[in-house]
Amino acid sequence: MNFNLKEAIEVLERTPKTLESLLVGLSDEWLQCNEGEGTWNSTQVVEHLIECEKSNWIPRIKTILEERGNTGNRVFPPFDRDAHLTNPSQSSISEKLEEFKRLRGQNIAFVRAEITGDSQFELTGEHPSFGKVKLRELLSTWVVHDLTHVSQIVRVMSERYREDVGPWVEYLSVLKG
Amino acid sequence: MNFNLKEAIEVLERTPKTLESLLVGLSDEWLQCNEGEGTWNSTQVVEHLIECEKSNWIPRIKTILEERGNTGNRVFPPFDRDAHLTNPSQSSISEKLEEFKRLRGQNIAFVRAEITGDSQFELTGEHPSFGKVKLRELLSTWVVHDLTHVSQIVRVMSERYREDVGPWVEYLSVLKG
Repeated sequence: MNFNLKEAIEVLERTPKTLESLLVGLSDEWLQCNEGEGTWNSTQVVEHLIECEKSNWIPRIKTILEERGNTGNRVFPPFDRDAHLTNPSQSSISEKLEEFKRLRGQNIAFVRAEITGDSQFELTGEHPSFGKVKLRELLSTWVVHDLTHVSQIVRVMSERYREDVGPWVEYLSVLKG
Repeated sequence: MNFNLKEAIEVLERTPKTLESLLVGLSDEWLQCNEGEGTWNSTQVVEHLIECEKSNWIPRIKTILEERGNTGNRVFPPFDRDAHLTNPSQSSISEKLEEFKRLRGQNIAFVRAEITGDSQFELTGEHPSFGKVKLRELLSTWVVHDLTHVSQIVRVMSERYREDVGPWVEYLSVLKG
């Protein structure tokens, strides 16, 4: 096991800036392209990350922390991973990333304030599909979820040039998936 | 085909900043981890990107441009994709990314100065494995090569938490590869 809260936060606090550096100022052709019907473009991925900051990570962390010592209900509140598709916002990518950065900052501050001892990492909640999960698994997942979606964005952008790279397609692992 | 020089440069000019936002200030545990023996860590990926700025993209572009109108030798100069492993530098990740940014800036300036008409995109060079390749394929590959290596870095970092995410491994596509 490699999880360590300090190192996890290092990644969490960098993601908004990383996406800002990658995406802000790009042409709409890069921001709106996707991998085909039913897949997300980069803008939609950012909207999903915002939705997770609002309705996934912190509500789940609170469910685990607030029930400590009880044998009561630790079932995570529902999360709709397609919520951002139902109510798409009209803001620019720059505004969306500002919102993501603000929410992420608040959420990291919450984690720093509320998770103060290593013993808390073993506290559990009930995931709707997986059953019992530990706080340290949830926090590790938050980190890898960020990385998964950075990976998705660069994969979606790469797909746009699949034909354009000609024979090099064979060497470019991002186009293998 | 989607290639367009303006849009390609948008991506090329963002990569150094993206990697700086992602990597500078991370603990060595994130910067030195890899996917097992014989695989690259994030620092080595950045060293490879620097080597490509020096010895791959521009020498190949020059080979194509300088031979225009001739029937002469358009074979690309040799490129050793493991060169950075033979002579690893001792500089910090921040210094490496500064070097990458500086070289990338120079190389984009070269491209802007030397590639001025669409007809140049059809000029060709000889790739050692693929044979005849077009300038537009090489430029598209430069873009996707950047994205491939951003993808590699986030995959390598994610791998570090493969066990830590517990049952969520099933949902995290970056851990599927």
